[in-house]
Amino acid sequence: MGVYKKRTLSFANSHILEGYTVAGPKENDGRYKGFFDHALEDDMFGQKTFERAERKMFEHAIDGAIAKANLTACDIDAVIAGDLLNQIVSASFAARKQHAGFVGIYNACATFVESLIIGSCMLNNGLENVVCGAGSHFSTAERQYRYPLELGVLRSPVTQWTATGVGATVLSNRSETVVPRVTRATIGRVVDYGIMDANNMGAAMAPSACDTLVTFFKDTDSSPSDYDVIYTGDLGKLGSDILMDLTRQEGYDISAQLHDCGASLYWDEQQTYQGGSGAACSALVFNSVLLGRLRRGEYKRILLAGTGALMSPTTSFQGDSIPAITHLVEVTA
Amino acid sequence: MGVYKKRTLSFANSHILEGYTVAGPKENDGRYKGFFDHALEDDMFGQKTFERAERKMFEHAIDGAIAKANLTACDIDAVIAGDLLNQIVSASFAARKQHAGFVGIYNACATFVESLIIGSCMLNNGLENVVCGAGSHFSTAERQYRYPLELGVLRSPVTQWTATGVGATVLSNRSETVVPRVTRATIGRVVDYGIMDANNMGAAMAPSACDTLVTFFKDTDSSPSDYDVIYTGDLGKLGSDILMDLTRQEGYDISAQLHDCGASLYWDEQQTYQGGSGAACSALVFNSVLLGRLRRGEYKRILLAGTGALMSPTTSFQGDSIPAITHLVEVTA
Repeated sequence: MGVYKKRTLSFANSHILEGYTVAGPKENDGRYKGFFDHALEDDMFGQKTFERAERKMFEHAIDGAIAKANLTACDIDAVIAGDLLNQIVSASFAARKQHAGFVGIYNACATFVESLIIGSCMLNNGLENVVCGAGSHFSTAERQYRYPLELGVLRSPVTQWTATGVGATVLSNRSETVVPRVTRATIGRVVDYGIMDANNMGAAMAPSACDTLVTFFKDTDSSPSDYDVIYTGDLGKLGSDILMDLTRQEGYDISAQLHDCGASLYWDEQQTYQGGSGAACSALVFNSVLLGRLRRGEYKRILLAGTGALMSPTTSFQGDSIPAITHLVEVTA
Repeated sequence: MGVYKKRTLSFANSHILEGYTVAGPKENDGRYKGFFDHALEDDMFGQKTFERAERKMFEHAIDGAIAKANLTACDIDAVIAGDLLNQIVSASFAARKQHAGFVGIYNACATFVESLIIGSCMLNNGLENVVCGAGSHFSTAERQYRYPLELGVLRSPVTQWTATGVGATVLSNRSETVVPRVTRATIGRVVDYGIMDANNMGAAMAPSACDTLVTFFKDTDSSPSDYDVIYTGDLGKLGSDILMDLTRQEGYDISAQLHDCGASLYWDEQQTYQGGSGAACSALVFNSVLLGRLRRGEYKRILLAGTGALMSPTTSFQGDSIPAITHLVEVTA
């Protein structure tokens, strides 16, 4: 796990104007009830298919973020977004409704943090306002990645629950008031420790989260205590424990700062076992709870580490292990 | 089709150090025979599955580009790449072999040009060397998007043939010698004219290509005659004719400059009907023929417009039309 400075970037002018969240019913029954801008009563969202519901969530979140930032669609230069569906069709089809350019991305559940990094880079190249976003939907992911919903397959205790929700963030190269900013980032690399169990993604992703966090600390000469909190995306409870052990072996104790968006999303009674997973986890928690605390000054500086498992059903069928990636952003109030 | 200046970017320091191509057997029997760095004799590339062959093509192209640029893996800060497989597993799994960061992207067959735009932006944010790449494989795409290969379905005369190949480009923020540079770009927006026929993607993509080209000409106050050639990605023969008509209606005659990577890839006797399609088209033709002509001074300035159709089998089953996107880069010798 060598130091490789070039993966860590600094941003002078990546102002977070606003964040907007659309959350599913189960998510709004969880620990962050009431924190979301729009909570669905029904995860069909008035559509004929789950896939169209997911698309509508994207449309709603992008429009909501733009309006909440007191901007109009014409002010937005690019939408940078992705989701878990094949060919990222939720983000792509939602982008039809925008005047802006579209930059489609995919790094599984690390997609939201990836969007913040690419968006921040583009602001430094002359763009003024961009919308970054990601999301997922339990019912579309479950039937695409695992089993038909109607089959009622019993779930293993190491599984997580794909969160339903979309989070969108408006980044701007200027702001009239002081707002939280994306100040630094580390681009993740693909790490594969040979985990084969597609139901145990926390274990597959923890080494990648360790690699990126340790790279960031070394590259920036910082330490966990420089941060109010460190949120990972969707390692789950087991994966978070593994990450704490791994970083301790590297000389960094993150136990006082570490939280996981996915693991914190639901109450135990909601029976999600290891907690939430999916691209929605970090997008939902960042754009509601974390951004709110940063804006109110309750947090001065945080790290958000989006964790992604890069397999597909086809690679699992063909006997491949699960590569993982973790992108990280530092957000300063 | 309004002017929206913010989608057009300029890059001061995006030097194209090298390009490398791995082409399938049918592609190396086509019009560009002998132009590719590595031509496969067998599209299985010594692997057990077509998907693993596609992955190996990515590994080979990324390593090949780095070596050809006289760099080592440690010199590369990020790999920015994508492909047509669900969850872009070819690019993701290939990136396991790199030390660099990985930025996974997907805009269908516009992915290669998208990678050049994101890579150029990242060079302006402190990265020194990045590898941009994209590709596709006939046999993996056909069975994922259309029919099992064994079924031997008759093809419609408006269909195209998914090209087998991967192209990778090393971009650097500096160069000791004068090399071609990515100088400007226009980020495409998602355009949907309601085309429903997934076998006629040229017609679905032509309006998007027109939107991006006209936006670029207006934003930069340039005209088609400022360029030696304008290459689109994979509109095919029919789509290219539609594009010429559409741009003429907007006051731009591109008939003297327009070529299509896909349409020019094969001989008529190879029976691909409208020509090649797939993310490989622009990646293969740019990194072999076009880059060679730029380096030799035969071209001074060209436009490469990557065209992508953003549907999935699921959206087509659910009755959706085909949205399209076109990203454009200007490359100056």
